[in-house]
Parts: sequence; structure tokens; C-alpha cells
Amino acid sequence: MTQRVPDKPVITVLAAPGEALPPGLDSLAEMAALRQAWDAESLRATLPGAHVLCVTDFRTGALRQAWPCADRLQWIHATSAGVDAVLIAEVRTSDVLLTNARGIFDRPIAEYVLGQIIAFAKDFHRNWELQQRQEWVHRDTERVQGKRALVVGAGAIGREIARLARAVGLTVEGIARSERSADPDFEAVYAAHDLCARLPDADFVIVAAPLTQTTRGLFDAVALRCMKRTARLINIGRGPIVVTDALVQALQEGWIAGAALDVFEEEPLPENHPLWRAPNTVVSAHMAGDFLGWREALIEQFIEQFRRWRRGEPLHNLVDKGRGYVGATKE
Amino acid sequence: MTQRVPDKPVITVLAAPGEALPPGLDSLAEMAALRQAWDAESLRATLPGAHVLCVTDFRTGALRQAWPCADRLQWIHATSAGVDAVLIAEVRTSDVLLTNARGIFDRPIAEYVLGQIIAFAKDFHRNWELQQRQEWVHRDTERVQGKRALVVGAGAIGREIARLARAVGLTVEGIARSERSADPDFEAVYAAHDLCARLPDADFVIVAAPLTQTTRGLFDAVALRCMKRTARLINIGRGPIVVTDALVQALQEGWIAGAALDVFEEEPLPENHPLWRAPNTVVSAHMAGDFLGWREALIEQFIEQFRRWRRGEPLHNLVDKGRGYVGATKE
Repeated sequence: MTQRVPDKPVITVLAAPGEALPPGLDSLAEMAALRQAWDAESLRATLPGAHVLCVTDFRTGALRQAWPCADRLQWIHATSAGVDAVLIAEVRTSDVLLTNARGIFDRPIAEYVLGQIIAFAKDFHRNWELQQRQEWVHRDTERVQGKRALVVGAGAIGREIARLARAVGLTVEGIARSERSADPDFEAVYAAHDLCARLPDADFVIVAAPLTQTTRGLFDAVALRCMKRTARLINIGRGPIVVTDALVQALQEGWIAGAALDVFEEEPLPENHPLWRAPNTVVSAHMAGDFLGWREALIEQFIEQFRRWRRGEPLHNLVDKGRGYVGATKE
Repeated sequence: MTQRVPDKPVITVLAAPGEALPPGLDSLAEMAALRQAWDAESLRATLPGAHVLCVTDFRTGALRQAWPCADRLQWIHATSAGVDAVLIAEVRTSDVLLTNARGIFDRPIAEYVLGQIIAFAKDFHRNWELQQRQEWVHRDTERVQGKRALVVGAGAIGREIARLARAVGLTVEGIARSERSADPDFEAVYAAHDLCARLPDADFVIVAAPLTQTTRGLFDAVALRCMKRTARLINIGRGPIVVTDALVQALQEGWIAGAALDVFEEEPLPENHPLWRAPNTVVSAHMAGDFLGWREALIEQFIEQFRRWRRGEPLHNLVDKGRGYVGATKE
């Protein structure tokens, strides 16, 4: 943070096309000049002279095209946990700071994951199907207590998932970049290269990792075949961490017993995509963490960060641009 | 327990029509003479001389008709948590002991309830409907943390529900026969006559009470109107605790925001019953507690009780026949 912070900095907000200025941001109007962009063209027009870029669209590709116009940029804030869309090579090699929304979505996502675990165990999906046909069919279902979960990604979200799952009696292991001993939130944390060794023990496998060069395609046919045939996959991380074709095959051929998917390689999930109708599969629209009030919470977090930045204080949630996520020591 | 226990007691097992002798019970063959009944007629034939009656059918009406044939009966064990089907007036006024399956279903039922709470909060039902139509519709959903639950019935099952719900961040109050201070499992425990005063605070209302003269029809139109319009009702107790017509009206007219129902006044729920299609309602086939292995667990529990009884030791889970459930002091 050696760069000078101007008296009235310029903030460009890059939102999804058609999206209004996030609620509450106008409270910065006295402290900063606000600009808005929705695509590459408007970003090119609003980046010159901007000191801060706040990206609220986690699917944007506009930054790469407009990057040459970033002549004063000191800091990019992404209002999402995953920063894959903004962490382009140009950003990685620049001295522009990158922060994310770590913390906001952790608990809601963990609640969603726990709900999917219980829904699988208690066969809620079949209950709904039977109810549509007005059929009364008693079944015995699984207990949750004593089941084993493997959380791939031991960051803030993965940890919150582990805490909730353990609170209701699951045994939870984690997979992180490297092995850790005596972790407070996991039974054990193994290194990424141990993934296939740990998968056969898990009843529930939860993808909570950031999308990086290491995690892209991590769940390929080999990994999916390492899972128990009775296990379920829950993906709340990013779609491309799982190889879609392999997942479809795994579900259709019964390599695994089901999947709960909130994220996809292509979003929205296209019509007639086989995942819509894959056996024992539930789909949601990238919304696991989006609780009522999340937009306001994200903007509050950005405003607090902005105040720190303006006072010259260190920013929270600084992304390690080499790794692609906020490091544990920055928590 | 002043009655003499014979050397080789006679046990009659009253099962549902067509149901085989429960697995594992044959291990008692050396210690007892085993008989089987499925209806009033076969019960009349097998009760004379029987010292123990083990009832595995929680819907049976056979006992009332066959009761005059119970000439030696000392003890009835019900392999269910609810004993309403066997606690007929004749049993209540006799000196026959009555025990139940307290403990076996607590945790699985609590898991089911927690799953329904999260499914409501995260709108899993709508996800599933949208998936049938292959529609991608992002919504913001509720947080579970910070929500308020009211558990009606503070017995073993109600307590386990409270423990799990609190473990994931809900605030949980209980309704019991009488008010209790400083309860370890509930934020507060109120008396039954406070029900309508406590209902307006609850986001989730969980019926976990036994069916007794006090609880029959407890959730009538008045009580349902005391609930918040955004609240959901979860019934895992007994169907007749809720007045079905009032519940249907409450759901259809939006007095409450939804219901998860595992028990009904009439079971199986008849075809074309309005509850199958009531708005925001999910139905399951009286199976919330029935985990894989429950039959074996129930018989293990009965065999353990039988050994205690034969040795002249006090039985566990003795039902207070005046109240209709196992008292707290007997835990």
C-alpha cells in the first residue's frame, strides 16, 4: 500500500448487464466519485482514472478486454468468494490489490450443504416424487449421525461446512493445498494429492474449493470412480472443478448415488442439459449462499473496506494472487 | 413388580397383519415361549396364559377387543415412542406395566426435522419443481441461523430436536405439560396453556408431543391462526394432535407458510386428500424415525428389557399411564 490515496478517489462498479448500482453504495457519494459499467465497452470508458474497481458480476469477461484502460487502478474488490473471473494474468502480475467477499456467504452455504446432506439421507427427493403421484410408500432411510464427509477446500466456506456437519454428528475430513495436523475444524486435513486415497471413505463429498489451475477438472472420471457407489457429491464451489461429462456418466451409470449441484460449467444450466434429469440429482441456480439481504451485506463489507483503504489501513480478505484465494494467515 | 416371573414366560407378539416375527426375536426361544398375533381374533387366541405382550403395530385396535382374554398379563411393551394405540382405558386402570421404545427414534427424527427446517429455509421444494421444468430461476433464500423454533412436547424426541436445532444456530423454546426453569436443552420451557402466547414468535413450530387427551386437537384453527404467516408447521408426533380441516384451511388460505407432515389423522393418507396438494406442503409416509436397522434396534431393546424383567429388575421407559408417556424422572 505505498500508492497515494487521492482525496476523492474514483470507483468504477462493474455489474452484470442490466443490474442497477448496488443498494447502499450511494452513501459513498461524498467520499468518492462513482462510475458504473456493465460490459467491456462501458468498462473501457470508465476505467481510465479509476482507483478502485468493484466487481459485482462473478461471470464477467469484460475485465480482460478493458484492462489496457486501467491506468490508475490500485485495488479490485470482488463481491464474491470466488475470484476466478477477475484473477486474469494481467491482474496477477500487476501490483493491483485484490480482495474478496470472504465471510459473507460461509454460513448460508454451510446451511445449504447440511440441508442437502439430510435431504439425501432421509430421501426427501423420493418423498416429493411420491407426493406428486399421491403414493404412500414407507421406506427406511439413513441416519446422518456417524456418516463421513470429505470437504474439498479448507477455506472459510469449507470450514463452516465442517463445523455445521460435525455439530450434527458427521465425521468430517478436509482436503487442502497441503496436509495440516491438529486442525480445529476437521478430523484431519489431507493434501490435494491424497484426494483419491480419501474419497473411498466418504459418504458425502463436498466441493468447496476456489477455481484455480490446480482445482480445474479435479473431479474427473478417475476421482469420481474413487467415490463409494453409495456416496453423494455436493458442489457449491465452481462448476469447472468437476468434469461435467464424467459427472453425467457417473450419475447415469451409478458410480455414485447422487449429486446436489449449485454451480455448473455453463450457467445458467442450458435447457435439455443431461444434468437436469440425471438420476438422484438436484439442481439449484447458483444461489446456495444468497440469503435475503446478501446484496446489502456485500456492499456494507465493501464500504468498510473502502474506509480502511482511504485511511491507509491494511485491507481485509486480501487474495494471494499466486494461489487464487485468501490465505489462512490473512483471516 | 410384585408379580412372580415364571421360569419360561409366554410372550405374545402383536404385529401388523402380514408382518413376520421381528428379526432377532427367536434368540429368546430358550427363555420364553413365543406366540404371534396379527388381529383381534389371533390375539384372543394367544393372550390367555401370556405374561408379556409385545406390540409392534402402532395402529392396532385389536387389544381392546381381545383384552378380556388377558388373564396372566404382567407387562406390555410397545416398540414405538407413541403408546396411544395400546393405552386403552382397560390398560390404564389395570396393574399391567407399560413400556415403550423411548430413545430409539429420537436422533433420526431430530435429523428429519432439521432437514425439513433447512429445506424450507433454502426453498428446496421450489428448486425441485423448477428442475422438473428445467427452469433456472435464481432466488434469495432464508438463513437458518437466528431463526426461532417452538417444539411442542419436551420429551426425549423434542429434546433431541432442540439439541440439533440449537447446534446449527436456531433459538429453541419448548412447550411441556408445565413450565420449567433453567432447562438444559431449551432456551425456555413454557406450559401447554401458554401455547398461543408463544406461537407468534416461532418461525418453525414442531409437533413432537404424544397423543393424549390433552394434545388431541391441540392445533385447531385458533392455534394455527396464532402462528406467523411466514411460519411452517412440522408434525412428527401424531396426526390427531392437529385438526386436519383447520390445517388444510391454514395452508390454502395462507395463515401459515407451509407444513412438513409425517403423521396424519388417517394413515395411509387417502388418495385425493387435500393435504397431498396443499400449498407448500411436503408429505412423508410416517417414516421420520425409521432408519435402516430400526426393526433390529427395537428388538434388541425389547430383549434387553425382557432380560431385566426376568431378573426382577426395574424396567426402563416405564410409561406413566395417567399421563400417557414416559415421565422425565424415569429417563
